[in-house]
Parts: sequence; C-alpha cells; structure tokens
Amino acid sequence: MSHKLLTTCKNCEIMLQCRKSILNRTLARTLTTSTPLKIQDEVAKLLSLKAQLGGADNVPAQKFILKTPKGTRDYNPQQMTLRNNVLQQIIGVFKKHGAECIDTPVFELKDVLTGKYGEDSKLIYDLKDQGGEILSLRYDLTVPLARYLAMSKISNLKRYHIAKVYRRDNPAMTRGRYREFYQCDFDIAGQYDPMVADAECLKVVSEILNSLNIGKYILKVNHRRLLDGMFEACGVPIDKFRTTCSTIDKLDKTPWEEVRKEMINEKGILPDAADRIGEYVRLNGGTELVETLLKDEKLSKTKAAVEGIEGIKLLLQYCELYGIKDRILFDLSLARGLDYYTGVIYEAVLTEPIKISNEDQTVGSIAGGGRYDNLVGMFDSKNKQVPCVGVSIGVERIFSVLEAKLASGEMRVRTNEVEVFVISAQKNFLEERMKICNELWDAGIKTEHSYKKNPKMLNQLQYCEENEIPLAVVLGESELKRGVVKIRSITTRKEDEVPRDKLVQELRARIASLNNCGMNGSL
Amino acid sequence: MSHKLLTTCKNCEIMLQCRKSILNRTLARTLTTSTPLKIQDEVAKLLSLKAQLGGADNVPAQKFILKTPKGTRDYNPQQMTLRNNVLQQIIGVFKKHGAECIDTPVFELKDVLTGKYGEDSKLIYDLKDQGGEILSLRYDLTVPLARYLAMSKISNLKRYHIAKVYRRDNPAMTRGRYREFYQCDFDIAGQYDPMVADAECLKVVSEILNSLNIGKYILKVNHRRLLDGMFEACGVPIDKFRTTCSTIDKLDKTPWEEVRKEMINEKGILPDAADRIGEYVRLNGGTELVETLLKDEKLSKTKAAVEGIEGIKLLLQYCELYGIKDRILFDLSLARGLDYYTGVIYEAVLTEPIKISNEDQTVGSIAGGGRYDNLVGMFDSKNKQVPCVGVSIGVERIFSVLEAKLASGEMRVRTNEVEVFVISAQKNFLEERMKICNELWDAGIKTEHSYKKNPKMLNQLQYCEENEIPLAVVLGESELKRGVVKIRSITTRKEDEVPRDKLVQELRARIASLNNCGMNGSL
Repeated sequence: MSHKLLTTCKNCEIMLQCRKSILNRTLARTLTTSTPLKIQDEVAKLLSLKAQLGGADNVPAQKFILKTPKGTRDYNPQQMTLRNNVLQQIIGVFKKHGAECIDTPVFELKDVLTGKYGEDSKLIYDLKDQGGEILSLRYDLTVPLARYLAMSKISNLKRYHIAKVYRRDNPAMTRGRYREFYQCDFDIAGQYDPMVADAECLKVVSEILNSLNIGKYILKVNHRRLLDGMFEACGVPIDKFRTTCSTIDKLDKTPWEEVRKEMINEKGILPDAADRIGEYVRLNGGTELVETLLKDEKLSKTKAAVEGIEGIKLLLQYCELYGIKDRILFDLSLARGLDYYTGVIYEAVLTEPIKISNEDQTVGSIAGGGRYDNLVGMFDSKNKQVPCVGVSIGVERIFSVLEAKLASGEMRVRTNEVEVFVISAQKNFLEERMKICNELWDAGIKTEHSYKKNPKMLNQLQYCEENEIPLAVVLGESELKRGVVKIRSITTRKEDEVPRDKLVQELRARIASLNNCGMNGSL
Repeated sequence: MSHKLLTTCKNCEIMLQCRKSILNRTLARTLTTSTPLKIQDEVAKLLSLKAQLGGADNVPAQKFILKTPKGTRDYNPQQMTLRNNVLQQIIGVFKKHGAECIDTPVFELKDVLTGKYGEDSKLIYDLKDQGGEILSLRYDLTVPLARYLAMSKISNLKRYHIAKVYRRDNPAMTRGRYREFYQCDFDIAGQYDPMVADAECLKVVSEILNSLNIGKYILKVNHRRLLDGMFEACGVPIDKFRTTCSTIDKLDKTPWEEVRKEMINEKGILPDAADRIGEYVRLNGGTELVETLLKDEKLSKTKAAVEGIEGIKLLLQYCELYGIKDRILFDLSLARGLDYYTGVIYEAVLTEPIKISNEDQTVGSIAGGGRYDNLVGMFDSKNKQVPCVGVSIGVERIFSVLEAKLASGEMRVRTNEVEVFVISAQKNFLEERMKICNELWDAGIKTEHSYKKNPKMLNQLQYCEENEIPLAVVLGESELKRGVVKIRSITTRKEDEVPRDKLVQELRARIASLNNCGMNGSL
C-alpha cells in the first residue's frame, strides 16, 4: 500500500478523502436500493477497499505534536511508586496528629478564587465559558478549605488534603516546578489559644522532612503582624503593605538591590522607607533576636510589630517543647506571597544543594504556610470568622530530589508486587495455567501468567527476573500426571515438587517467610 | 456598629467605599508628607477607624452564592474514609493481578481528545484560551493512556490509574452521577492471544464487586464485531454503524420503541433494518445463544458477526476457568457509547435496587470496558498499533451505595485514627501536655491534645468519646509530683497509674492489644 492517510501531503490527503467520500456514497446508495442479501459480496468488497483507505471510522490523522500540556508531565510506574511511598509517609504523619481527610472539586466558581491571591491571581487557569457557571481550576487547597468551612458551617476541623493544584507559572521542571502539582496540606481550624496549633504545624513539617530523609533543612518563621508593624515603622503607606510584602517575598531568589528598586520604582515606596526596610530584612536569628527587636526603638512603639514579636517569642518557646527549636530560624525577610496570611508565616528550606539532572541545584522552599484568620469569614454571609493555621508540603520538589536519587542508582523501587508467576514448561498449557491462577487469586496470592497461548520458557523466566517476582509455579505434563507441580525460586533457581492440592498452602508459607526477611523485593 | 460592609444595600456600600477611599488617601498623604515618628498617633487612630470599616485589606464582600460547581461536591471526612477504604480494596485487586500505577495530567491538549468520544464529545470541558496551548479536561482515563503509550513508545503495560475525570453531563447526584467523578481503570496493553487478557479484566471486576459486598450483579458482555456484523446483516449503511451503536447504547434506559424511532427519524435507518436489529437486540443468554447465533442464517454469512460470536465463545470458555461464568450474560443489546471499542465490550450491572435517599433506586452500570485495538495507533505517527483491553470501575456509584448504608446507620466509619489523648486535669498544664505529646509523637503514637491553654476536663473527655479515641493520659499535679501519670480507658473509664518514664512502653502495649482485638474503633 503506497498511500497512507497519515501522510502529511495535502494533495494526497484531499484525494484520499474524495475517494473515501465517493465510496461512502456508493455504499450508502447500494445498501438503500438493493436488498441486503443480494449485495453481500459487493459490501464485502467495498468494505475491504475502505479499510485499505484508512479504517472504517474515518479516523482523522494526527496533526499535533504528541506531548503533555506545558508544565505538566506523566508519571510512569517508577515515579508513581516513589510518589505513593512519599504520600503514604506524609499521610502517616498527618494521621499521627489526628487529622481527618477531605476533598474538594478541582475547579471552583471563579468568584471563590477572586481577590485571594494578590499579584499571583494572573496565574489562575480559567475554564472556557461553555454556558453555565464561570469556573477556574483551584490554585491552592487553602481557599477551597475556607470555602468548605464557611459553606458547611464548620468551626473546628483538623484536616489534611492531598490533591493537585494549578498555576500558569513559568515551569522549571527539572527543579520540580510544574504547572500541575501536588499539594499536601495540613490545617487546624478553630478558635484556640495563641501559637499552640501553629507550633504543631511546624512539628508536623519537621516530622515529615525527617522521615523522608532528603537532607538538612531549616524552618524559617516570621509574623505578618511584625511585617505590618515594620512597614508602618518604616513609613510605608498602609495601602501598600500587601504589595510591599509581595516584593519582599522575592528576597529568597533576588538580591536586595533589585528588590529595593522594585519597591521604589514599581511600588512607589520612598527610598528612605525602602532603606529602613532593608535594614530589618537582613536580620535573622533565634530568641536573642526577639529580645533585640522588643527593645528596637521604632518597632517597640508599633503595636502590630510588638504583637508579632511576642507571637514569635511564644512560638519559639513551644518549639523548644516540641524538640524542634534547633531547626527554627526567625527570619525577617520571610514574607510569603499570598494575601490571606494574618499571623505567623513559615517556610521549610533545604540547606544543602541537591544533584538533579547532573547539576547541583538548590531546590529552595519545600514546605510553607501560616496563619490566616480572616479567610473563612470572607465566605460567610455574616462574616463569621474561623481562625486557621496550616502548612503545605511541596511534594513535587521532594519527588524531584528522590527521582534524582533513583536516576543515579542511589535508590531503587519495585513497581509491582507480584508474588507468583505461573509458567508453562511446554505447549498447550494455557487452560491449566488459568485454573491455577484462578485458584491463587481466589486465595489472595498476587499472581500473573503470560497472556500468550504458548509462551517460551525462557521468556517467562526472564519476565520473572525483570519484574523481581520471587516465585514461579512451573507446569509440566509429567508432573501434572503425577499430581504434583514445581515451585521455583527465581533468585536461587532451586525447584521443589509439591502436591498439586498443597500448592496454595505451600506458596502461602513461602511468601510469608519472604515477607518476614523483606526479601520479596517490594517496598 | 450599625454598618457592615457585608450589607447588601447598595447605597450604604457606596458610602462606605467612599469613606474607605478618603481614609486611604488621607493615610497615604499623611504618611508621605510627615516623618513617621510624628504621626504615630494619627496613624493608629486612622488604622482603628479603617478596621471598623471592614478590615485593613479592602476585602470585597461576598456577592455570589456559596456552592461547589454544578455536578460536583466536597467530600467530608466520613465520605473520604469510605472512599479511601473502597479505593484501597480496588487497588488491592489490581495489584493482585500485577498492575503497575501511572498518572497523567488532568488536562490534555484538546486535539488529543478530539474525535475519540463520538456524540459525547460535546460533554468535554474546555479551558479558556489564556494564550498558549488549547486544553481540555480529561474525559476518561483511556485516551490519556493511549496517548501515554504512543508518546512513550510502550508496547506492553498492565497498569491501573485512579483519578478524576470530567463530563459536562446532566448530573443526577443522588444516584452517584456527577460532572467530576473518579474512575478506577485497569488495562492490559500488548499483542497477546485472543481473549486471555479480556477474560482477566472480567475476573478483576468480579473480584472487586465481590470484595466490596454491594449486592448481586451480572457482567453483560457483547462484541463490537458482532454488532458491526449484525448491522451489516440488517442492512445498515456502513457509515452509520457507529451512530447506530450510540442509539443502541440507550437501550438500558430507554424502551425499544423510542430507540427504534431515534434510529429511523434521527439516524436515517430504514424501518425494515431497524426492525431486524430489534429482533437481535432482545436476545441474551450464555453458551447456547452462541450456538444459536452461529447457525443464524444472516449472521453466519457475515464475516464480522462470526468473528464476534467466536470471540464470545472463547471468552465464555475462559470465564468458566476463572470461575465467573455464572455471572456472565451475553447480551446483544449491550453497545457502549464510546467510539474506540473494536472487540469485546462489557458492563457490570447491579441486579437489585438500592435504597438511596430513602428511595429504591437502580444504580445501573457500575463498571464497563472493552477492547480498543486502534486507539494507540491514532497517536502514533507511523500508526503503530498497541492492542488494549481494559475496564473502568464506576466508583462514584459504589460510593453512593455505601453512603446510603452510612446514612441509614447500617454501617459506620471512624474518621481519625488517634490512639491517645493527653488531658490536663487542672489549670496551667499546657507545657506538660506538650512535652508528653512530643514524646508520644516521637514514639510513633497517634496523639492529640487540646489547643486551649486551660480546657475543661469534661470537654476533653467528651472529645475522646465523640472521636472514639480509646486511651487518655491524664495529667494531675499530685501524680506528676510522685513521678506517675494516669492512663484512662475511655470506654471502661478505668484509670491506672503508671510511672512517668514507663508511659510510652505501657501505651504501646495497650495499643497493640487494642489493635489485636480490633477494638480501637478504626477500620
């Protein structure tokens, strides 16, 4: 066949389309003017001709580049195994702290998201107006939580939520920055005493990062009231607090000089004010910094600043009780980009560079969060507030770090959990294999066999080795006649005969002993 | 305070907005023209005034109805526990059959979805063109799988994929029909011998439905080649095969008379042809029907029909070996709506009505799938085919059935897994509680305490009872002085003193014994 519909030549295609359409008309005419039985042969001929022209379905040829949307990716079985293992560990920590699980739709009414994310709102994905409601993809899990609490009139909840969120950002995929990415959020909603829940969020982050074993980290903390007080003390107009905050937030990636310029030129802050801010934001430390700031001439006279500093003082005290104070860095340059924070804010940062795609890279922030006491009220018709504090684990960054370890061979994962492979040692044993598989499945044993009628012995053994399947049942005619089957250990290649009716029992015992020595290859 | 920004009165609001804006200007002017220290008092006064007018952030009042988008819902902790339990069971079966896990993005290039779903394409959610690629939300997990296989050049894969898909359908939420819903897909891709993988898919469905214990079901099977052959034999023009198939697909909800009308009036099928189809589609049965059809005068002369019937014959034989033949119904009215099927098709249907929202309802199809041998080739530039067969579990319907059981009290779930609650028996014990919590968390014990400084004893005990927490550690001053703490069993109310330094050890022993008797309330 010289012509294919998949050719990209326009002329050929048009010609083929014409031939197909003539054919269709001929078929339709023939079918409607003659009785079916008479034209059987004609139809068969036309059908076969049509099939040669590109399938009976008029399937359009592929004209686009085969890819996933910008900033997104597929997860292959190795990556999924890694991801599921990480998520299971994180969920384990969340549950240890008593969190319940909720879920919300992937999209929200656009109005729900409007006015919550400050300058980042431009990164929201909107859905097309197809008649009906105007929708956007969720940008984080915090605003949907607030909407959920207000809508369900819930005033106390400790929940976790693990789901994908969407941001039309400039992706840097090798560093784990995607447009579609998982967030793992843990939040505590309710009217409680200061910093008790806030400190627990930091404890949760610390437990998660310890358990994942991805390197050293620090937990930076700051307080929005202190930032507000600092802006006030430095002479920033109150209506520029939030936008100045957004600029400060860039300090983790941008040097002070550039941030200063943006403040002055784009945000209209006076150079004097900017310089005063510049002096504060270079400060970081621990309890001693708290004491210094409490004595600071300007800050100590600003109510908001004092509130913020006192808050940090209490937080540090609780962090000491939770055994994580050595990880905490009180850092005045930490601002967090989102508008909705009202109290303590924090961010976990890996302190060692990580090898990703053969380059040493700094992954940066891998968890962040803070207190947002006014967000739920924004959704309540009576403005009823539900104070909240929470943290979001940036698992994509964590996946990147672990995928790099996988790629370098420093780590390995098994992508299936099959315990037994049923092998035909000779031809025409498909039905016997199926019977045994059925017996093993019904006994709860993880079992596979070849989907070919007469697979080669070597291929079946190779499959077991490649997939790290520990055991095989080998079916041969002479054994079956004697009422026995062979069990083969794939690693040792040792084979033992067992009575056919003791097969399940024997396999169960072997699997149990493999599991006990952690030898079955699964994680 | 008589005015609130949340009032819906337009005049009040405009007035308030004016006052706020004047205030902002005054603030800004004051701040930029005077030195900060001088105006400290002024600023404080203005700030407090501004706060009274509705918060410092110029938060817009909520103007929209608080809801989730049409056809979607939140999952509360009870529903999530149910959902996670069901998904875990399903994943267990998938893994028992050796499936690996993959994931794909929630949206695809629109072109990937185009031409795959026939008449249902109008239900696809499109994203707004915000510059860049034209995207749509995934409609199922099958087309993304085919795109993934073609893009990654994979010709063998047994994978499962559990994720949400999106259809702008008319939701019937009480019956578990949503616009956003989970699919749990199991597919086998690769060039294998006929019906071996196909039969295993049916086995998988049957294992899942048995394990979920949601009532009696049958597995309807049919074959697209038989449908094609039947259409051909009845005199349907070949270019109307797929659209006639879509009409036949409605037979599960619509009586034959209406389906016949649609065929004739909307699809342009001749009345004679429709009547001949009508005779076939009322047929269903088992092996005996296979034999009858093989002798049918018209079908036996149609190549496609004979291929289809022979396929079903082999499938039934394998289903017998897999111990599920009594669940299978060969049903000529089963058509499946999607265009991409090429071979066997099947659907699982609950046969007993289910009580949902106090009404007996038929939930209908709860799993479906089939063979699609040409879909991957549609994405391959060289049209390289990867034959596939798979099944999708309609978990939302299953959730609905189980949620109804939950609502009726026939079933219960615990939404957290907390093992120990640390109680203050008197005031000022927050720090002591925190120290003990920290010790228990670090020992891996699932622990909570109150986030209040001085919670009431009764409230703490009540919390334990409501949340089915089995154990409490009770801290009292006299005990602490003596170096002991009390462990309380919440159900028996029995308290025992244990040495402070033996606490973790003792709790671990008690938790282990609770877990052994399945008494800790968690699932």
